[in-house]
Amino acid sequence: MRLRFRPVESSFYDHFSDSAQHLVTGAGLLAEMLSDEADREAVALRMREAEHAADETTHAIVKQVNSTFVTPFDREDIYALASGLDDVMDMMDEVVDMVLLYEPKVLPPELLDQVELLQRCADLTATTMPNLRSMQSLGEYWIEINRLENAGDRNHRRIIANLFSGEFKAMEVLKLKDIAEALEGSIDAFETVANRIEQIAVKES
Amino acid sequence: MRLRFRPVESSFYDHFSDSAQHLVTGAGLLAEMLSDEADREAVALRMREAEHAADETTHAIVKQVNSTFVTPFDREDIYALASGLDDVMDMMDEVVDMVLLYEPKVLPPELLDQVELLQRCADLTATTMPNLRSMQSLGEYWIEINRLENAGDRNHRRIIANLFSGEFKAMEVLKLKDIAEALEGSIDAFETVANRIEQIAVKES
Amino acid sequence: MRLRFRPVESSFYDHFSDSAQHLVTGAGLLAEMLSDEADREAVALRMREAEHAADETTHAIVKQVNSTFVTPFDREDIYALASGLDDVMDMMDEVVDMVLLYEPKVLPPELLDQVELLQRCADLTATTMPNLRSMQSLGEYWIEINRLENAGDRNHRRIIANLFSGEFKAMEVLKLKDIAEALEGSIDAFETVANRIEQIAVKES
Repeated sequence: MRLRFRPVESSFYDHFSDSAQHLVTGAGLLAEMLSDEADREAVALRMREAEHAADETTHAIVKQVNSTFVTPFDREDIYALASGLDDVMDMMDEVVDMVLLYEPKVLPPELLDQVELLQRCADLTATTMPNLRSMQSLGEYWIEINRLENAGDRNHRRIIANLFSGEFKAMEVLKLKDIAEALEGSIDAFETVANRIEQIAVKES
Repeated sequence: MRLRFRPVESSFYDHFSDSAQHLVTGAGLLAEMLSDEADREAVALRMREAEHAADETTHAIVKQVNSTFVTPFDREDIYALASGLDDVMDMMDEVVDMVLLYEPKVLPPELLDQVELLQRCADLTATTMPNLRSMQSLGEYWIEINRLENAGDRNHRRIIANLFSGEFKAMEVLKLKDIAEALEGSIDAFETVANRIEQIAVKES
Repeated sequence: MRLRFRPVESSFYDHFSDSAQHLVTGAGLLAEMLSDEADREAVALRMREAEHAADETTHAIVKQVNSTFVTPFDREDIYALASGLDDVMDMMDEVVDMVLLYEPKVLPPELLDQVELLQRCADLTATTMPNLRSMQSLGEYWIEINRLENAGDRNHRRIIANLFSGEFKAMEVLKLKDIAEALEGSIDAFETVANRIEQIAVKES
């Protein structure tokens, strides 16, 4: 690894690490929200705060892109990665909101498998962020996120097939299907982040 | 602002202004379509014409990209912006079609809030297009579209929660949910346009 | 057309041709899956194999991008095209899975129109791949895929309106709507491929 004399760059990496850390928090709150004994109003409030904190990190990155002359990689890639991370948070926040607003009668336990996958994606993304600096181990991260996303896809199809089995009323199916799709969308959003990091790695290699 | 001696560039800006102006027309027709006393067949016909006119502007931009040697910004960005504007029109056209074909029994008044947001997005986009030339005030436009999109998101969740409240029959919920999602998708499509303009501004700055 | 002395490039074109050929296979299996007398378990198994074969081609492309010094066009465009082709396969595989898992009572014949469009998109994409080398006739391909995608959009709206007509029970509507949307998504995914090829053509021209 070559020496770096441009200290201004550091904070991009720090911001991205913060951004990924917000996702770890968000995924944790999502897990709380779906547990049986959750005080849903309270968890939703904490999720809102976490989402605002994530927004601020995103804005800090965008502001820095606009005011920095030398950036560690292409401006548009920094921008795309920052929005990608922000999108994950927005989608997890949406799931929390849906659980609060739709008041589903029961939450099928398979939804928790999806939340567990989300937590693993978040942990993995947070662990990987410091590697952006050295561009090491990014390929392994990308492969693992893709593996988790494939697992999420398979879970999702089973969840939906189960919702259609006749066990639930049509209106409950509509609610739970929306929630299941937002969970799957959140996992997909992690894959989009991984794809953008892979694209940066391909460009910079 | 520096002097420009390349008159050929003008028409890109003119085309983009036309393209945004079609969206103002489209959003207006959408508002008509959702009003109680609308002659839906007639409005849908005018929407189809507006959509064709928008297509022609998009094709004119693509043709010009392919035949012009010096473009005011990167070819792929011109192309992405043109398709982004075209996508908004397609999605608003889709909403009009859905209202015509699905024949929903009632249209919840909250849907009109979404159409109002769409009209504000369209007006703002049309007002901003001439600023592409000087790259002025694009940051404010981007922030405001993001604000409108967030408002649209919140409206959307309330609309869906209301559809799930038990007041509507399952089949009506399915129809209205589709229409509500297409409205929200149209607002998102305006945000995509704003993001592409922001990316151009970041690149060119 | 200029002479090419870089034989290493050939295999990118070969890989892309293979990738498109997998889509021809996939679209054919989809047509089988939706026919009345299908042995759905058996067809789904063959689809799974076809999807794995497509995955391997995609991985071969990504590996080659990372290990080749001179690529025939930009690395990120090769990567985007490869993922675009892979996405089509994933979506067609998803449709097959849905038909297997949801066990819909009847499949409306209009769904077969969508599969026919998919087969035409796949054939056209496979025929076009060899033209990537000379960059000939790509405009015509793009226009034709767009035409097919517009036809698919119109079919889709009629299919959904028909599902909402009152003829089907809510739960059947949910199943068939999901299947119809995945079919339309597959056609859209072909359009995304065409758009990426068009972008490469614009860049390289």
